[in-house]
Amino acid sequence: MSEPAAPTTYRVVFQPSGRQADVPVGTTLLDAGRAMGVEIEAICNGRQTCGKCQVVVEEGFFPKYGITSAADHLTAPDGRERQYWESHPPLPGRRLACACEVQGGLLVFVPEESQARKQVVRKAATERAIVVDPAVRLYYVEIEPPTLERQLGDWDRLAAELAARFGLTNLRLDPILLGSLQQIVRAGDWRITVTVWQDREVIRVQPGYCEELYGLAVDIGSTTIAMHLCDLRTGAVLTTASRMNPQVAYGEDLMSRVSYADNREDGLATLHSAVIGALNDLAAEAAAEADITLDMITDIVLVGNSVMHHILLNIPPTQLGQSPFGPAVSDAVDMKARDLGLKLAPGAQAHVLPIEAGHVGADNVAVMLAERPDLAPADEIWLIVDVGTNGELLLGNSQRLCSASSPTGPAFEGAQIRHGMRAAAGAIERVRIDSETLEVNFKVIGRDEWSADWGPGRDGAGADAAETPAERRQRKRQALLGQGPILAAGICGSGIIEAVAELFMAGVLTPDGRFAPQIQSPRLSWQGAKAEFVLAWPHQSSTGRPIVITSDDVRAIQLGKAALYSGARLLMERLGVDHVDKVLLAGAFGSYIDARHAMVIGMIPDADLAKVHTVGNSAGDGARIALLNKNQREEARRLARWVDYVAVALEPRFQDAFVEALPLPHKYDAFPHLADVLAAAAARRRARGVADTVSARERRLAVRRQVTGAVQE
Amino acid sequence: MSEPAAPTTYRVVFQPSGRQADVPVGTTLLDAGRAMGVEIEAICNGRQTCGKCQVVVEEGFFPKYGITSAADHLTAPDGRERQYWESHPPLPGRRLACACEVQGGLLVFVPEESQARKQVVRKAATERAIVVDPAVRLYYVEIEPPTLERQLGDWDRLAAELAARFGLTNLRLDPILLGSLQQIVRAGDWRITVTVWQDREVIRVQPGYCEELYGLAVDIGSTTIAMHLCDLRTGAVLTTASRMNPQVAYGEDLMSRVSYADNREDGLATLHSAVIGALNDLAAEAAAEADITLDMITDIVLVGNSVMHHILLNIPPTQLGQSPFGPAVSDAVDMKARDLGLKLAPGAQAHVLPIEAGHVGADNVAVMLAERPDLAPADEIWLIVDVGTNGELLLGNSQRLCSASSPTGPAFEGAQIRHGMRAAAGAIERVRIDSETLEVNFKVIGRDEWSADWGPGRDGAGADAAETPAERRQRKRQALLGQGPILAAGICGSGIIEAVAELFMAGVLTPDGRFAPQIQSPRLSWQGAKAEFVLAWPHQSSTGRPIVITSDDVRAIQLGKAALYSGARLLMERLGVDHVDKVLLAGAFGSYIDARHAMVIGMIPDADLAKVHTVGNSAGDGARIALLNKNQREEARRLARWVDYVAVALEPRFQDAFVEALPLPHKYDAFPHLADVLAAAAARRRARGVADTVSARERRLAVRRQVTGAVQE
Repeated sequence: MSEPAAPTTYRVVFQPSGRQADVPVGTTLLDAGRAMGVEIEAICNGRQTCGKCQVVVEEGFFPKYGITSAADHLTAPDGRERQYWESHPPLPGRRLACACEVQGGLLVFVPEESQARKQVVRKAATERAIVVDPAVRLYYVEIEPPTLERQLGDWDRLAAELAARFGLTNLRLDPILLGSLQQIVRAGDWRITVTVWQDREVIRVQPGYCEELYGLAVDIGSTTIAMHLCDLRTGAVLTTASRMNPQVAYGEDLMSRVSYADNREDGLATLHSAVIGALNDLAAEAAAEADITLDMITDIVLVGNSVMHHILLNIPPTQLGQSPFGPAVSDAVDMKARDLGLKLAPGAQAHVLPIEAGHVGADNVAVMLAERPDLAPADEIWLIVDVGTNGELLLGNSQRLCSASSPTGPAFEGAQIRHGMRAAAGAIERVRIDSETLEVNFKVIGRDEWSADWGPGRDGAGADAAETPAERRQRKRQALLGQGPILAAGICGSGIIEAVAELFMAGVLTPDGRFAPQIQSPRLSWQGAKAEFVLAWPHQSSTGRPIVITSDDVRAIQLGKAALYSGARLLMERLGVDHVDKVLLAGAFGSYIDARHAMVIGMIPDADLAKVHTVGNSAGDGARIALLNKNQREEARRLARWVDYVAVALEPRFQDAFVEALPLPHKYDAFPHLADVLAAAAARRRARGVADTVSARERRLAVRRQVTGAVQE
Repeated sequence: MSEPAAPTTYRVVFQPSGRQADVPVGTTLLDAGRAMGVEIEAICNGRQTCGKCQVVVEEGFFPKYGITSAADHLTAPDGRERQYWESHPPLPGRRLACACEVQGGLLVFVPEESQARKQVVRKAATERAIVVDPAVRLYYVEIEPPTLERQLGDWDRLAAELAARFGLTNLRLDPILLGSLQQIVRAGDWRITVTVWQDREVIRVQPGYCEELYGLAVDIGSTTIAMHLCDLRTGAVLTTASRMNPQVAYGEDLMSRVSYADNREDGLATLHSAVIGALNDLAAEAAAEADITLDMITDIVLVGNSVMHHILLNIPPTQLGQSPFGPAVSDAVDMKARDLGLKLAPGAQAHVLPIEAGHVGADNVAVMLAERPDLAPADEIWLIVDVGTNGELLLGNSQRLCSASSPTGPAFEGAQIRHGMRAAAGAIERVRIDSETLEVNFKVIGRDEWSADWGPGRDGAGADAAETPAERRQRKRQALLGQGPILAAGICGSGIIEAVAELFMAGVLTPDGRFAPQIQSPRLSWQGAKAEFVLAWPHQSSTGRPIVITSDDVRAIQLGKAALYSGARLLMERLGVDHVDKVLLAGAFGSYIDARHAMVIGMIPDADLAKVHTVGNSAGDGARIALLNKNQREEARRLARWVDYVAVALEPRFQDAFVEALPLPHKYDAFPHLADVLAAAAARRRARGVADTVSARERRLAVRRQVTGAVQE
């Protein structure tokens, strides 16, 4: 009796995806995976040098998968694979998928680190996975040296090898790399790792086998620049750095920047150099913190409002300052980072996301990319408020999405506020005020316990905890040296919002935003018609002086929140909706502020508080998404053209709506979800004899004064 | 009886191409032409503004073409066409092809200036037409201004219009142009002319309708840089400028440049800056002469030998100086001219032709493009000798073509020659020596009459025409001021070759290149073993000093010609041929030298003199061809990889062949086509008692001395 013929195919199952197929004998696991759409990492593409394609092989009897034989399912490690395992710590059951061939049924587990498309999860309200598939990719090749008979150029032989091994035809080499190519190729002994951008251009060449790949995602705000340094192989954020936009020195708001660029000699060059200098500083800082060098960074994605976008690209923002506000370019811009003056890898690419309109920029496109309101169900209305010096709004769902901009002013970023500061260590980010005693409890960035728990002594909590001059000197010296616990240094955006909301709920502020003269408190002091309220006593402050919130601060917050609220209301009218189902509050204004406080001061229209989420620097997250996934860049281009820009702030009705929105909320019918809170605040005001309403005429007069006053300041 | 139905198509014939077809009624002549492959110029693409599509319409009865009706064959000029003719001189029978529609049979003549693909004829031995189809092209568009409702970027609207009207999809804009776009678009009142490179990238934007388009073709020789400024619409050469390569200061030959780049601090940067500076100076000079500005130049094609190529691209030439002489890149390089440091249009493109091998560069590829030896019939052997500091050779035909390089030295370019100079005004370019009297008759560049006809006086011809000191001072002052007739200033390459050949034929030089001591002449004087022979007397010279040719000059020429000859012979051996059917002598060494003189000194192997042609700066012509026609750039890439590089100068046999080739030709059997000339020279030597042969031993000793001497000098 003859033996049955050996099967020519065997069942191979890949986990965790569960994909499976019958695979011909002799197929490598790498090829088998590829055939099933299981993407296994393999930088060296089968040369058994990179070790990225490690899989855990579980040989045996798996009747569930139809695997019924039980031994010698794979070819044994050959010389090269053995060599790899000799120089690397061996792990049980591990094999290089490129090196072993199917000889029987197999269950193969692809560990996280060997999966070609890694995912990172965004920590945000709209939690979504980002597939890591960046625009830059590494390829490792080995080329033959030239000979007297074959003097073809190093690049030509490298290009031929990249085409043959990876199908990368029509590749070009960034000509700036030509000068160092021969030295690098020889330093690597004809083994080279190249960084390829969009399968089109080689933008970096390194000797030998390399696997590090980094990129930057940047949100250029009018007041704050935020930068993420990302590992483009894992998608991880390695460091995040931010700093004040140095252009603030040439104008607080967008229109004053436009005016500076237009009217000063070298105005544009000054603003452009300022932002490029800040970006280079931030990049150097981020690289140093992550212990890499700047020439390891080969990709940067930048977003910003339209004016920031134009100045970044060295485009005069003239047209953005006058009707009809047409930009020079709306589409995404790809260019060499060096042509912007950025000091990264010499061949590094820069990608600037598209803008929507003259007043809604690439930052709003990035917010869409991060929050995807275009995926909202057709029966829900989403409102996204991106709080910045220029506030931006998105309203709608998958059927129709409108965007608008609103001149918020920089108050929410801590600018034009007496003790305002950026969200950095020492900034008061949370505030609670006892509505009876008016005692303040706050939290600063960088210190876990609230101020009420700081304990007595030189960093004591009590207002009456006496501090000797010697103690005070020591505290100040320690603060200067960075020693001792962190004290309050100022107030950041979220702290200001909470402080105003708490003061209003405590009955200290009237609906028109004035400190009530009836209030008697050691924290409240008057200078003429204006007052200031102490949040942190001198001993709680790193400067040794009290940190206060003033009448003017409240006014600045009112102007900003009225711009956001009125813009949102006009957008709602345009879309024909009378409520919103979900609100996302984005912005780089500090920690995640409390939804209730945002609604109490009237930043956003009424909504179910459970459906109001703060999502942090959403524009920066969108930039990061575009950095990590090249397909998302195309998605951004599509979204930028699909969204419907509405010029609400240019409508004549905007001014009325704005004035209407200036008071702090006190009409319960407009805020049904806040009815209890507002009623309690009103009760407190009544108990203290504080005015609860202002006549229409008085209110308008007050408003005019506020607007004029703010403009003159 | 009803009338017959009107025909729905009519016969339209285009001349001079003779293309014809039956065309539907209502088709514009432009579209009809396009459908038949008749390319009519139309920058505005049918907007009736550019007037480029003018055709001469010959209506009537042309039975030969089947045109049998005789009136109203075209629609009448409409408002816009009438407007065009009102503002331009009307020409009889002329119509705008884009504006008139077919209504009957037509004979249409497309004048030269309306043909989209113009041709220029190269004035050269291998006379061929170049189709003008450059890599840069102009497109005129009109775009809609933005509105408050449609704030799409200017570039986006421009790109959409270019896609819609010209099918230019996936165009990108050079990001450097973003900054000026809005101003230009508004200056042109939404009418714009863009320059597009390779249908891929907009590299220049101009307001309004423009039609000027310019480019540069450059040959960077080791000693001489030559530049053509071309009108890219007609193909015409507007100006040609050349100057000494300033790198000469850092080393005469290629290997000394490589050594300078490798061993000096900033050596490469110094050499690179030198050539870029010279290119910028030449471009400015050419632009000024053609009365255009540098920013009107949008394309530049550069060629040069491999070392010049690497230094131009800022690539260390280290590897080119050591075996196996592998270049960094062989393929053509496209890059921004600005990235090379060239000051042309900000978005201008640079194209560097491919190189063949470490020692045969882009200049040789350009020579192939100009002379097309690859098209030589299979039964002919062509030899192309490109005379430069590094001589380059091509041998073969359409079946197989070999290339080689040979270290000629700079003598043929007038360098390392006592009174040598570049081919510029005042250079002696032709020389005739009376074999009896040894009287010299010469011609200088920039003056039509030969020196024998210069007449008496201060610019007199006779050696005995006395010049008073006053006359001499005035002549010198005039020469300095550029006044008065041009006098001899030095000798350029062709003058040196002719002088050596004439001296040899006159029996003044021995076959081993020494001045014969038997000669008695006021022109010949001795200093020890070395002699010098006066070509121009002081009164014929702009310096007031005699212009001479020395023993060392003859020796330098011998070394150069021996390198070329021995290289050619070894290539012939490699190809297995014993003769060549056609010889092309290329090089920027002055005027077109006489084939007989070149052969008399033994620069080239024996050939039928009627088949030896001098073709001038063939590498420069090849660069111009690649500038004028983008398809020729692809052809150059193909040729560079197809040609078979032979490292003859590295073969050990080269040294023997070189020594063998050093004497001036005196063996009749090696030069059957020169037998009469060589016999006459031998007869003169015998008549004067001058040695006619040297013993093998003596000759070799002399040769060793010459080689060593030349190296030490």
